[in-house]
Amino acid sequence: MIVIMKFHASSKQIADIISRIESDGYKAHLSEGEERTIIGVVGESPTPLKQENYETMDGVEKVVRVSVPYKLASRQFHPHDTLVPLNGSQMGGNKVLVIAGPCSVEGRNEIIEAACAVKEAGATALRGGAFKPRTSPYSFQGFGEKGLQWLVEAREVTGLPIVTEVMDPALVPMVCQYADVLQIGARNMQNFTLLNAAGESQHPVLLKRGMSSTVEDLLMAAEYILAHGNTRVMLCERGIRTFEKFTRNTFDINAIPVLKHLTHLPVIADPSHGVGLSEYVEPVALAAVAAGADGLIIEVHVNPAEAMSDGRQSLTPERFASMVRQVRLIAEAIGRTA
Amino acid sequence: MIVIMKFHASSKQIADIISRIESDGYKAHLSEGEERTIIGVVGESPTPLKQENYETMDGVEKVVRVSVPYKLASRQFHPHDTLVPLNGSQMGGNKVLVIAGPCSVEGRNEIIEAACAVKEAGATALRGGAFKPRTSPYSFQGFGEKGLQWLVEAREVTGLPIVTEVMDPALVPMVCQYADVLQIGARNMQNFTLLNAAGESQHPVLLKRGMSSTVEDLLMAAEYILAHGNTRVMLCERGIRTFEKFTRNTFDINAIPVLKHLTHLPVIADPSHGVGLSEYVEPVALAAVAAGADGLIIEVHVNPAEAMSDGRQSLTPERFASMVRQVRLIAEAIGRTA
Amino acid sequence: MIVIMKFHASSKQIADIISRIESDGYKAHLSEGEERTIIGVVGESPTPLKQENYETMDGVEKVVRVSVPYKLASRQFHPHDTLVPLNGSQMGGNKVLVIAGPCSVEGRNEIIEAACAVKEAGATALRGGAFKPRTSPYSFQGFGEKGLQWLVEAREVTGLPIVTEVMDPALVPMVCQYADVLQIGARNMQNFTLLNAAGESQHPVLLKRGMSSTVEDLLMAAEYILAHGNTRVMLCERGIRTFEKFTRNTFDINAIPVLKHLTHLPVIADPSHGVGLSEYVEPVALAAVAAGADGLIIEVHVNPAEAMSDGRQSLTPERFASMVRQVRLIAEAIGRTA
Amino acid sequence: MIVIMKFHASSKQIADIISRIESDGYKAHLSEGEERTIIGVVGESPTPLKQENYETMDGVEKVVRVSVPYKLASRQFHPHDTLVPLNGSQMGGNKVLVIAGPCSVEGRNEIIEAACAVKEAGATALRGGAFKPRTSPYSFQGFGEKGLQWLVEAREVTGLPIVTEVMDPALVPMVCQYADVLQIGARNMQNFTLLNAAGESQHPVLLKRGMSSTVEDLLMAAEYILAHGNTRVMLCERGIRTFEKFTRNTFDINAIPVLKHLTHLPVIADPSHGVGLSEYVEPVALAAVAAGADGLIIEVHVNPAEAMSDGRQSLTPERFASMVRQVRLIAEAIGRTA
Repeated sequence: MIVIMKFHASSKQIADIISRIESDGYKAHLSEGEERTIIGVVGESPTPLKQENYETMDGVEKVVRVSVPYKLASRQFHPHDTLVPLNGSQMGGNKVLVIAGPCSVEGRNEIIEAACAVKEAGATALRGGAFKPRTSPYSFQGFGEKGLQWLVEAREVTGLPIVTEVMDPALVPMVCQYADVLQIGARNMQNFTLLNAAGESQHPVLLKRGMSSTVEDLLMAAEYILAHGNTRVMLCERGIRTFEKFTRNTFDINAIPVLKHLTHLPVIADPSHGVGLSEYVEPVALAAVAAGADGLIIEVHVNPAEAMSDGRQSLTPERFASMVRQVRLIAEAIGRTA
Repeated sequence: MIVIMKFHASSKQIADIISRIESDGYKAHLSEGEERTIIGVVGESPTPLKQENYETMDGVEKVVRVSVPYKLASRQFHPHDTLVPLNGSQMGGNKVLVIAGPCSVEGRNEIIEAACAVKEAGATALRGGAFKPRTSPYSFQGFGEKGLQWLVEAREVTGLPIVTEVMDPALVPMVCQYADVLQIGARNMQNFTLLNAAGESQHPVLLKRGMSSTVEDLLMAAEYILAHGNTRVMLCERGIRTFEKFTRNTFDINAIPVLKHLTHLPVIADPSHGVGLSEYVEPVALAAVAAGADGLIIEVHVNPAEAMSDGRQSLTPERFASMVRQVRLIAEAIGRTA
Repeated sequence: MIVIMKFHASSKQIADIISRIESDGYKAHLSEGEERTIIGVVGESPTPLKQENYETMDGVEKVVRVSVPYKLASRQFHPHDTLVPLNGSQMGGNKVLVIAGPCSVEGRNEIIEAACAVKEAGATALRGGAFKPRTSPYSFQGFGEKGLQWLVEAREVTGLPIVTEVMDPALVPMVCQYADVLQIGARNMQNFTLLNAAGESQHPVLLKRGMSSTVEDLLMAAEYILAHGNTRVMLCERGIRTFEKFTRNTFDINAIPVLKHLTHLPVIADPSHGVGLSEYVEPVALAAVAAGADGLIIEVHVNPAEAMSDGRQSLTPERFASMVRQVRLIAEAIGRTA
Repeated sequence: MIVIMKFHASSKQIADIISRIESDGYKAHLSEGEERTIIGVVGESPTPLKQENYETMDGVEKVVRVSVPYKLASRQFHPHDTLVPLNGSQMGGNKVLVIAGPCSVEGRNEIIEAACAVKEAGATALRGGAFKPRTSPYSFQGFGEKGLQWLVEAREVTGLPIVTEVMDPALVPMVCQYADVLQIGARNMQNFTLLNAAGESQHPVLLKRGMSSTVEDLLMAAEYILAHGNTRVMLCERGIRTFEKFTRNTFDINAIPVLKHLTHLPVIADPSHGVGLSEYVEPVALAAVAAGADGLIIEVHVNPAEAMSDGRQSLTPERFASMVRQVRLIAEAIGRTA
């Protein structure tokens, strides 16, 4: 941490900073310019440094953090890619994996039909929501545990592992009994109670970026899960909220290579939410793979015009199959498979 | 709802829309221009209209919603201001009420001292967090139930009712035993499980706007609570996330009069989070009152440089007292009291 | 400037940085931690430091700027408020001044009628556009020089000085012959050719913040004008572009006290563009004054439903007069006049 | 256009709307629900419909525009791709073209060296700024006309056509004498005087999206140029300003397929500005091509650590050559060449 003092800060103010640094168990290293003093904080101590408190002290212009705050998620101390096993493959490995299925589980037959369709097209895992976070209390909220049971039937038929969202920390153990991967949605990315519960479960987790979360916020949310010793965490870029309203969200393509650089965790792209209009899902999916995404999660519905949720961004099985073929060509162009 | 067909949509496409409207139990009202047909959906039906599904149908350019989706929160069907009792006054009434206290409950003596200070300066209620949502798992997470007990002691000493955050739906009943008002924080504004639990509790709720939530999203979140018959809901503007990083957030002053216009619920301003730097809290607080806020929630700490959280935006008791005096003058200038 | 080296940067990399600092004419001051070296750049030199180039060098983690880049606009070297004379008063003084008038000059009689109405209500100066920046090439683009002549007639009748926009650098001398204050609009805030022309003109300038410009960008744009020795610059907050679309822009109320703190230049608020809906202009105007704005600029039209532009956000003369009375009460509450 | 009346608007209010529609030369088509009346505006008239004025009238809830406002840029009336000739190829054709070179022209030898390097690597055209828009008045502003002369020398040596920025409308004719393509930068996207001058010049134009401009704003800016009969317009996505600050901008990958769908004009991607950090330029470039971009514009510098501007985002010639090879593989994967 570096404390930058104000222009002509008093020697009393400088001494107070030094004294606090020392009482926190660190050493202060002064750099005195003609107009301004800069104080580096060096060494180690069990007392964490509180940047905000230093910023509050008299004579301080600003405080600059030097180390990354996400120790477990960072590549700095863990340079090798973390691989998360999924259906005999590994998310984060050379093969680009595709998770697909409807937004919501809408019935037993519907989810089995959807599972067969996405398997046929080449999907590695099945997505489908039994608990749905909806903006309106009057919208369909999902079939709950019954939906999970139908997902299990679909898994029995197709062999595809299940990725499904959990919203309530109290239901994590129950959802773990059915699901292969717990999904934590964008609206819950900073639901710390839920993150802790997911961490404790030791179940694989697909963690979506919040719609106004920075890349660093996402890594800090992952850190909550990792801090419980649960290392099977997959990060998912799904679009951020900006002033542009033609599309549902703005898919942050930059975040794909940035995350691959900062962290060892696998990075998945969700172009369905990232653009929100089915006609643009394929080009954004191809872009994500070209930029280095390890996997995709795609909303597919047998009849989008009848979908109980997210119909506007769902691909038909035919268009999904066509997209998967194109994904393979892009993956090969960058030396991967799909 | 209005369905706007594409330029030269086919008569088959138009017929399909009409047929769906009718099978949903509504009537279709056609307006045929030379180039384009527009279809109004009129009447009532138990089947809710799914805008997204219509958008997915062939030949549709766009679908425009006409009614507001927040029936209970809207002034349209409930024109009179809802008043929420607080310490003998009423949030939403003529008097501007001030809730104040530290970000976190940091100890028994600390919270009692803070409570006495803010009461002395004119606060109506005491804020203080026992459960803290923190970006980092390594930051102080609050004292939990012990913190709530200390808050109760502070209430016994000062008579100030307690406003405190709850993050875990499972803990709502426990927190209700101690708190006078449940606070739902910005990061949990769309934690629907928590909103439902708060609704069921029938306890007063202070609901903060999410940092990337629109005004409509906030009203829909309130709708979750109201749908349980719990009408004691106070909305709180606390700043949104924008490209401007000099301040912690961008306080959305427009939202104050907009919310007062759209809803009957009381509207509170949180300039502490809205600007994030203590030297600018007072001017933003005065602005919020001038714009019509019913109340303020302000972070106050006896020694900001030692605060366990949010020190950079906390006022000292002296500066808080000075702010309250100024708030009174502004309130009087617009015909209110404080 | 401070150069923060990467974790375990090599001594060669550190030496290269030092060598460059010295060849740029500065001194390097090393602070060597156990894991990381931090290099302060001290002293003065005619060679400006290029932060980006240092960031590009091997082994560099990041580079932190210490000084503000707006030397002329900053309070640091110019602590006293700059006052800009306007119609016998001074923008930046104790009195809150109100500039008002229609978005566009729509005709000779129309602008005279508008000028009389706003003068009657207490305006200090008249606004009105003769050159209009319009999103669409098919929209009304203003009456040009004829509009300026009508403005002069309105000034002759009312005595109100004229504030009017200039978009083309080549027209600055011509506009200066008619106008008392040159307005540079939000879309041209970084039109550096225009800023230079306005600086050279030595005419008073009202500079609006761009819709996606930070506070620092605004101060740097002012610096272009100030660098020509033209110190009569007034800054104007007019709302920024965010994800919230209920209002036309998001008025950044925080920017008012922040700008008053960072710069000695007067700060004006434009709530008409800041919220974009006439029913909310008054509360946002009051908020801006409560937060410390030195002046307001308000769109007023005799018949908003017939306005050639910006009708939706224009006040009628009656509502404007009512707003001015309320502004006076708020100004008095904070110890100013209006 | 559709006018949606308020819940229980009066018949007088409805009659006033109808009367205005008719006096504007259109026909009103009523759709009367039980609670609400909706009025479609049909027919044609020389009087343009002013949406804002209708919104201002009593009893109106909102007004919905139906047609797109960019008639010349829209695919609706011009379904075939516009091709812009460039160095024997065509921007907008099957081959993905790459424009490359330094941010600024830094000297005669430097630009010739850069031109040879990018030609060798496979670039189709040379970029380089002689007039530089800089946030600070104290930064290098470009070599002006001398820079243009050096560009011409570089063209003579390499045969690469020149793409260079023009900022001042008065200099458009002069810049046209040297440049093959006029670049209009992000900060000038709504500099309407400049757009008109570029339109009048009949010179090819590369128009960059403003950092807070919507896709529709960009198309409306293009409309200004097209309205002069100048159809050789290339649009460029270069990143938008969002809350995410790890990268310089957020490259809006969604905009690539959206623009290709809405307009017939070629779409170019600028990943250098879109991400702003050289290590991420290649993955974002590949993503843009995968998403359907017709071309790329890339900053390349022989020695980024010595660049006079934008060094942090410039590729070395070696990395650029490697990127071009990868671009070819991606282009082939989607059935194009590069």
